[in-house]
Formats: sequence, structure tokens, C-alpha cells
Amino acid sequence: MIYLDNAATTKPDESCLEKASIFNVDNFYNPSALYREGLNNASEIKKAKKTILKCIGATQEFECLFTSCGSESDNQAIFCAVKRGVYVTDKGEHSAVYKSFLELKNRGNTVEFIDLNSDGSVNIDKLFDYVKNNRVDFVSIIHVNNETGAINDVNFIAKTLKSINPKIVFHVDGVQAYGKIPYVLSRDIDLYSISAHKINALKGVGALIKKKKVSIAPLIFGGGQENGLRSGTENIFGIKVFEYASAKHYDNILESYNYVLGLKNRFIELLDRDVFTIISSDNSSPYILSVSAKGVRGEVLMHSLEEYKIIVGNGSACSSKNPFSRVVEACGYDKKILDGVVRISFSIENTLEEVEFAVDKLNCTARKLKGIMRV
Amino acid sequence: MIYLDNAATTKPDESCLEKASIFNVDNFYNPSALYREGLNNASEIKKAKKTILKCIGATQEFECLFTSCGSESDNQAIFCAVKRGVYVTDKGEHSAVYKSFLELKNRGNTVEFIDLNSDGSVNIDKLFDYVKNNRVDFVSIIHVNNETGAINDVNFIAKTLKSINPKIVFHVDGVQAYGKIPYVLSRDIDLYSISAHKINALKGVGALIKKKKVSIAPLIFGGGQENGLRSGTENIFGIKVFEYASAKHYDNILESYNYVLGLKNRFIELLDRDVFTIISSDNSSPYILSVSAKGVRGEVLMHSLEEYKIIVGNGSACSSKNPFSRVVEACGYDKKILDGVVRISFSIENTLEEVEFAVDKLNCTARKLKGIMRV
Repeated sequence: MIYLDNAATTKPDESCLEKASIFNVDNFYNPSALYREGLNNASEIKKAKKTILKCIGATQEFECLFTSCGSESDNQAIFCAVKRGVYVTDKGEHSAVYKSFLELKNRGNTVEFIDLNSDGSVNIDKLFDYVKNNRVDFVSIIHVNNETGAINDVNFIAKTLKSINPKIVFHVDGVQAYGKIPYVLSRDIDLYSISAHKINALKGVGALIKKKKVSIAPLIFGGGQENGLRSGTENIFGIKVFEYASAKHYDNILESYNYVLGLKNRFIELLDRDVFTIISSDNSSPYILSVSAKGVRGEVLMHSLEEYKIIVGNGSACSSKNPFSRVVEACGYDKKILDGVVRISFSIENTLEEVEFAVDKLNCTARKLKGIMRV
Repeated sequence: MIYLDNAATTKPDESCLEKASIFNVDNFYNPSALYREGLNNASEIKKAKKTILKCIGATQEFECLFTSCGSESDNQAIFCAVKRGVYVTDKGEHSAVYKSFLELKNRGNTVEFIDLNSDGSVNIDKLFDYVKNNRVDFVSIIHVNNETGAINDVNFIAKTLKSINPKIVFHVDGVQAYGKIPYVLSRDIDLYSISAHKINALKGVGALIKKKKVSIAPLIFGGGQENGLRSGTENIFGIKVFEYASAKHYDNILESYNYVLGLKNRFIELLDRDVFTIISSDNSSPYILSVSAKGVRGEVLMHSLEEYKIIVGNGSACSSKNPFSRVVEACGYDKKILDGVVRISFSIENTLEEVEFAVDKLNCTARKLKGIMRV
């Protein structure tokens, strides 16, 4: 199997699973229990937070709150940091942010979706204009766009937003950036969401990195875990796998980045440009490549590649309301391009041989589907 | 180690972990992905739902929604089934319900906490009186009290509530009942919360069993997983462990119940009644036994047992605001009793020898701490 849908989820790292397995065997205790074994697990969770904060270069002003997924982190940031007001995001957000903003609107808040550039990055001039001309309470911007791989310069955005209005609470969805893009968290960012299963850890774990002085309410009330901000028995096993996978990713983040960039560049080099339009820009995340075969349905292309045991992602949202990707549509492409989008997303487990084989099959399949004979 | 805090969490079942491990290796795919491997995982999640619904004897009118924990299930039931109105619960609820009700009050709703009987069960006369005399929208009652083990007859409560006011939405927190108490879900119950890690599955997984015709809103918005009701990539590994552990528990639920009842009865038989007051009633869950050594601090007792490698739970809430267990206090006990509460909670992994050893050490330790010489 050639797996090129690593932006959807990644294969859990065996060595991290193995190392954390003790928390399902000898150390399965409830981290909130007051006896020694519980307290030990609580301190293991503290260590995990420390590792993750260190990975992202967070200063002492930040803390880490474990959640059940990136979506929960996004939801808590959006619904629990500001009570009501004017909320700003962009048209390129992941559904966890986008749909939460639609819900904010339902609840009577003012909500603004800023336009994208053609590569899927946010149009920062429009963003800053809006913030200058309106009393904005909350802004949420994705770090790496999950469909096109566009990287928003969230540290620059943070600095500019705060210089316009220091009271703005600024949230960044960092799910596709964490562990992949070399990056140091800016002190101007208030909340930063990350997810475990995108970096070879487990599904069911996420975190919200927050500035200590930014007060947020719980999304889930109860036993008072996570300093009262996220109740529910701590998923110690999942959290430790996340910690180990984080450390492993950050130990080699630059080497991995360059290796994956090599894969992506080779892919682009071999891609049949008579058939494919490249949606991702040159300076996008090397981990994500969005392309479109005009006139071929992306879903059909995806399914056709299955017979070669190649897995790629489907750019299309596939909802009944909108057959096209909302994000790529917001990049300004016409329907024929939208229809043909496939997302290739790499990991360091992919080899150059896999990439070469996959792009060859992708080219052949698309040409076949378009009815073009190879000359 | 003699582990007698199984109401806090349980040791994950090795065979269930092993059986589900494929979902972290070959079948790690995102269950929302549209290629074959993703669709297969989606159908594995469907199977898990079917198993769980079957375990609890739910009719075709019910569906199962996976969440990240029992607390999330409780929160979604409480915050997302009724928009606002009159909410009723009791003083014996787990914090996930209790604190959510305090939050409902903060948000301007009318909230009523019904008194308990001395064993921790809800005073149903007062409950039904309140419901008769008020236009109640939502009721939440715990099935098995997590501190005293008191079993509320939730099916009878459901039937009576619906006969008084069929429009009431009735939620049951079944976290300490599921997989332990032989029980068939009543059609008069609308929502029923369960948790995986209380039955030898993993932390980080829960479910909300709901009547299909009861409409609830999402608590977490996003990609539209779980029929739009719970977004976030499905935790397939955790869900499958939950399924396997559920099947295993329900295959032998009556034998396990009787076995654990034997352990509890032996414990009570050997307990030094000159020193200990038993808070749990005779007909409480065999899995939970709450006792108090008047004049001895429960926390001190708990820590003293650690030197014998015996782990018991501490009944006390240990919050700065209230040094006593809110639930046991609501049972009507005085401060000296409240101060000395320890919770012993069994599992089928416990042996009679463990129980005999533990109760002997508990007796000795309590007598020593009270300054009573053994005659």
C-alpha cells in the first residue's frame, strides 16, 4: 500500500505505542486519583505538557490543555474564550473552525469570513482592513491549510492584529503545522490547537496551547481535570503516545521537512502538466500537494488509484449541499478544476520510489479518464 | 498490588487491546475517508455501535453516538437536548452532571437538585412531586451512584416521569452501571451515557445512547462525523476496544455480578463494625462499597493502606471549597462520618484472598489510627 493521505491521518508510530504501553498495563491508574500511582500518572501528564510546549518553543507564559482532538481544541477556543461579539476567520479554515463560526452566527454573533488568495492562504490585507474598521473580539486563522498546504504567517498576523487591537483574542488552528513545519510559537498568539493523530500518534487526543493569562471557560464540565478547563478522566496512554511522537518529530523536524520537500518536488517534476493544474503554491507545506485534473472527477481518480494500492485524498467535501471543496472554491477556481481535485499528502515514511510509482499511475489514470492517448 | 478502586478506572483488558491493535497498524485509516480502507473502518464503527446497543438491550429506536468520555456524553445530553428551561437532577450525581447543572443555572435556567435517601439513591417521591408541580423540560438521574453504589430504578423513574409529562427529555448517567448491572434499556429513556474505561477498555472513549427521535445539537462542531452530532476523527482503536470489552462483559454479566457480590459480602462480613459504618445499602451495586471510619480521615486511611500495596478510593471530593464528599453529605451523615469515608470498588479480577487481606489491613489500620488497641 502506498499511503499518500497523511493529512487525513497517519499511521501510529510503533516505538511510541510500545513505549507508552505501560500506561495500559502496570500504570493504568486514574491520573486524578490521590494515591501514589495516580499522582505518578498526573506527573507523567505534566511531563507530556512540558515536552509539547518545548517542541513548539512556547515561553513560560503558555500552558497546555489536553483535549480529545483538534476539533475539540478549535471548538473550545472559539466558543469558550469570548462570550459574544465580533468574530473573524477566513474562507480556508478546516470545518472544525468553519462550522463553529456558522454556529456562532446562529447564536447571534457577528461573523466575518475573510477571502483567500489563489493558493488558499488568507488575504491579509483584507484581514487587517476588517480588523482596523471593526471592533473585533476574536480572530481564528489556520496555520497550514489542510487542503492546499498554504502556510499563513501566523506570527506576523498575530503581531499585526495585536498592534491594531491588543484586546483581540487570536486563535490558530495548528493541526497541519505541528510536528511538520519548523516554527516557534509567538507570544502574540493566545490559543493554538494541535492534534495527535496527524503526527503518528493516536486518534482521540488533541491539545489546546494557551496563554496562561487568557481565560477560557470549559467546554466540558465535570470532575475538574485540566485545572477545571477540561473534565473527563485523562487519556494517559494517548497523551504519552502524543508526547513521544512529538519529541520524535521535533528531534528531526528540519531533516524531515527537507526530505518530504524532496518527495513533493519529485512528484511535481513528474506530474503531467498537460493534464494537471497544481493548486498548492511553491512555498506551501511540503506535506500537502493539491492538484486537479480538469475534466476528471477527483473521486473517480481516487478510486481508480485504489487498484494500484495507492491511497490519495479527495479534495471534494462530498456533502450533498456542496459537491466541491469549499476551500478550493474560495481560491477562485472554476467548477471544472474544483471537480478534479485530489490531495496528495506525504510523510517521512514515504519513499521516492513510492512517489515515482504513484505519480506515474496518477498521470496514466488521469489521461485514460480524460480519453487522452499517450503519444 | 491489590487494586480496589475499579470505580475510578479499570485495567484495560489485554485480549481486547490485542484484538483491536490492528486498527493502529494495518487498519489505521481515517474512518471518514472515502476509499475502501476508510469505508471499512467506518463499517467497523457501525459494528461497534450495534454491539453496544445490543449489550444494553436497546430497541431499534435507539442509536449510539461515540464521544471522548462519559463526561462529554453527560455534557452533550445536558447542554444539547433542550435549549433552555427547567432542569431537574439530584444531589447524588457525578460531577459531570452536577457541575453541568450549575452551569445551566449560570446561564439563567431553572435548576432543581432533588434530595437523596441515606444510601445515596434519589428520593423519588420528591422527584415526582417536583415534576408534577413544575413544567419540567429535562431530567438527569444517575443509574448507579459512583460513591455509594446506590442503584436508582431508572426504568421505573422513566416510566413515571413520562406518565406525568411525556415531553420531558430524560437522561441517565449509566457510567457505573454499563457492563456491570444486568439491565435492559427502557424505551422511556431518551439519553444514556456510558464510558469505556470503567469496563476494562481505554480512557478517552465514551458513548451517548440516544433515542433516534430525540434531536440533540452537537457539542463539538466540525467535519460532521457521527451524523453531524460529534465532529472529530473517530477514535477507531479506542472504539473497537470498547466494543470488545462490552461484549466480553455482557457475555458473563450475571456470573460477574454474583462473583463480585460474593467479594463485597465477604468484605462486609469481615469488616470491623466497631470501627466502620457502612454507607452503601444492601441492595447497592456489588461493585461499589462505601464505608466510613468515624474519627479517622479517609485520606489518611487510604495512604496508610498504600504500604500494604492496597489501593482504595477516597470518598472525599478534596476540593478546597468542600473538604467532604458532596454526595455522602447529601445522604445526611455528620461531619465525623464524612471525614472518614473510603470507597472500595471491586472487579472480577479481584480474588477472595485479596479481599480478605485488604479488609484485615483496613481494620487494623483504622483501629491503629483511632488509637484502639486490638483486644
